Amino acid sequence: MDSEPLIITVLNIAGTFAFGLNGALTAMRFARLDIVGVLVLGMLTALGGGTIRDVLLDRLPPATFRDWRYLAAAAAGALVAFALGHALERVNRSVIIADAVGLAVFAATGAATAMQADVGVVQSVILGTVTAVGGGTIRDVLVRQVPSVLSSGFYAIPAAVGAAITATCFAIGLHDWIWVSAAALACFALRVFGVRYQFRAPRPPKAPDVSS
Amino acid sequence: MDSEPLIITVLNIAGTFAFGLNGALTAMRFARLDIVGVLVLGMLTALGGGTIRDVLLDRLPPATFRDWRYLAAAAAGALVAFALGHALERVNRSVIIADAVGLAVFAATGAATAMQADVGVVQSVILGTVTAVGGGTIRDVLVRQVPSVLSSGFYAIPAAVGAAITATCFAIGLHDWIWVSAAALACFALRVFGVRYQFRAPRPPKAPDVSS
Amino acid sequence: MDSEPLIITVLNIAGTFAFGLNGALTAMRFARLDIVGVLVLGMLTALGGGTIRDVLLDRLPPATFRDWRYLAAAAAGALVAFALGHALERVNRSVIIADAVGLAVFAATGAATAMQADVGVVQSVILGTVTAVGGGTIRDVLVRQVPSVLSSGFYAIPAAVGAAITATCFAIGLHDWIWVSAAALACFALRVFGVRYQFRAPRPPKAPDVSS
Repeated sequence: MDSEPLIITVLNIAGTFAFGLNGALTAMRFARLDIVGVLVLGMLTALGGGTIRDVLLDRLPPATFRDWRYLAAAAAGALVAFALGHALERVNRSVIIADAVGLAVFAATGAATAMQADVGVVQSVILGTVTAVGGGTIRDVLVRQVPSVLSSGFYAIPAAVGAAITATCFAIGLHDWIWVSAAALACFALRVFGVRYQFRAPRPPKAPDVSS
Repeated sequence: MDSEPLIITVLNIAGTFAFGLNGALTAMRFARLDIVGVLVLGMLTALGGGTIRDVLLDRLPPATFRDWRYLAAAAAGALVAFALGHALERVNRSVIIADAVGLAVFAATGAATAMQADVGVVQSVILGTVTAVGGGTIRDVLVRQVPSVLSSGFYAIPAAVGAAITATCFAIGLHDWIWVSAAALACFALRVFGVRYQFRAPRPPKAPDVSS
Repeated sequence: MDSEPLIITVLNIAGTFAFGLNGALTAMRFARLDIVGVLVLGMLTALGGGTIRDVLLDRLPPATFRDWRYLAAAAAGALVAFALGHALERVNRSVIIADAVGLAVFAATGAATAMQADVGVVQSVILGTVTAVGGGTIRDVLVRQVPSVLSSGFYAIPAAVGAAITATCFAIGLHDWIWVSAAALACFALRVFGVRYQFRAPRPPKAPDVSS
C-alpha cells in the first residue's frame, strides 16, 4: 500500500465515496431501508469491488479494511445520501452519475493495481472490470434486482474499456497518472452516454426481443 | 489456530452449531427443501461468516475447513434441525434464538480474532460484525429473502455493539475470556430485546414510512 | 500450478468450457440477456467454483485468473452458446448435460487439488463439492433462481460422491489419472440418471410434501 501512487489512492477514495452514495441511495429507493440498512448497503457497494480485487490478488487483509480512509469515505458517502436523500432523490440522475463515477474510477485503478501485481494484460482487464462492477453486483443481489452487469450491456463494456486503456498504457510503459485518469474519464463518458442514448449490445440471434 | 484461546474455540463451536440449526430451520420453513438442501443451507449459514473473516484476515485455508470440529458442529446443527424440525418449528422462537446465539458469539469472537491479527480497532469492529452477519446474509440471499442485515436495523446494531465491546476490551488490555463472553451476552440481549420490543432504527428523513 | 498433472488441467479446461456453455445458455433462457450479459454469466459460472476453491486453499491469485487457458475456455463456451443458442435451446437437454459435465469434472479435480494441498479427506470432499456447485450457485443467484444445490437433492449428492471417490483414491495412494476420471464419470452418471429418473432425497419428516 505504501508504494501505491498518490493519484490511485485519491481516485480510489473518490470512487469509494461515489459508490457509498450510490449504494445508500439505492437502499432508500428500492428497499426503503432504515439507517442501518442504508449504511450497510452503501458500504458494501463501496468496498465490495476493491475487496474482491484484493482477495484475488492476494493483497490480504484488503486495503479496504487496512486503510481507514476507505472505510471513512464509504461511510461518508452513505451518510450524505441518508441526510440529503430526499433532495437528491428528485434528481434521479444523481444515482446514475454516482454509479458511473465509481465504475470509471475502479475500472482504471483496479486494472492499474492488477498490472502492478504482474498478472498479465488480459487478466488485468478482467480484474479491473471485476473491481468496477463487483460492488454494484453485490448491491443488486442484496436488494434482489437482476445485476446491472447482466441486464445492461453498457455497464460492463465501459468498465472493460476503461480497464483495457489502463492496462495497455501500463504495458507500453505509460505509468503516469494522466493515463489512469484518461482511462477513467473514457469509461465515465461511455457509461453516461450509453445510459443517455440507450446504447444496446447485440442480443442472441433470433431470440425474441423481450426487454428484461 | 493452536494458539487460539480455548474459550474462543468453545464459543465458536457453539455459535456454529446454533447457526447450523438456524440455517436448516430456515431451509425447512421458507423453501421446503429436502435433506441435502437443509444440510447445505445449514452449513453455509454456520460456516459462511467465519470463512469470510478468515479470507479477509488472510488466515487461509479458513479454520472452518481446516478444523473438523467446525464442520461437525455445523452438520450436527443442521441434522438436529432436520430430525426435530417439526417439533421446533412450532416453537417459532427457536429460529430467532438460534440466530441470536450465533450472531452474538460470532460478533465477539470475530472481533477478538481480528484484534489478535492487529488490524486496528475500527477494522476489528467491522470484521466482527461481518463475521456475525455474513452467514445469515448468505442464507437469506440463497432463499431469496431481503437479508436481515439490511431489513432489520436491530440485526447489525447488536452485532456491532458486541464487536465494539470486545475490541475495546482488547485495546485496553482486557484479554480475559470473561470480556469476550460479556460482549457476546450484551449482543444476544440487545438482539432478543430488539426483536421482542420491535426496536427500530431511524428511517431516512421525509421518506414515506413503508415497512419493508 | 506447473506441477499439476496434465489430466487435471485437461479435465478442468473441459469443465470450464462446459460451464461457460451452460451459464450462457441459462442467461439466454431465463433472463433474455444481451451478449455482454451472456458472456458475463457464462464466465462467472465457469470460473466461480474454481475461484472459490483457490481462495479457500490460499492458491492466490487463482489459477482461473493466472492461467489464460481457463479464461479462453470459459469465453469460448459462452460465445459458442451465444452463436448456436437458438439451435441448442431446442435440444433442452444440452443445458443439463453441459451442467453435469462441469459438475462432474470440478467435483473430481477440486477434491484432487484439495488432497494435494493436504487439507484432509473430509475437507477435500467438501471442497470438491464446493468447486463443483460454486459456479452454478453464483449463476442461479444472479438470475434470481433458487440455487440447484438447494432445490435439487441430486445436484450436491453426485458432486459429493465424485469428490469422495477421488479423495478416497488419493488417500489410499491411487493418484493415477484413471481414478480421477472414473470419479468424474460416476458423478456424471449419477447426476444424469438422477435428472432422468427424478431421484429424490428425503424431505423433513411430517412436513407437507410441497415441491419447491
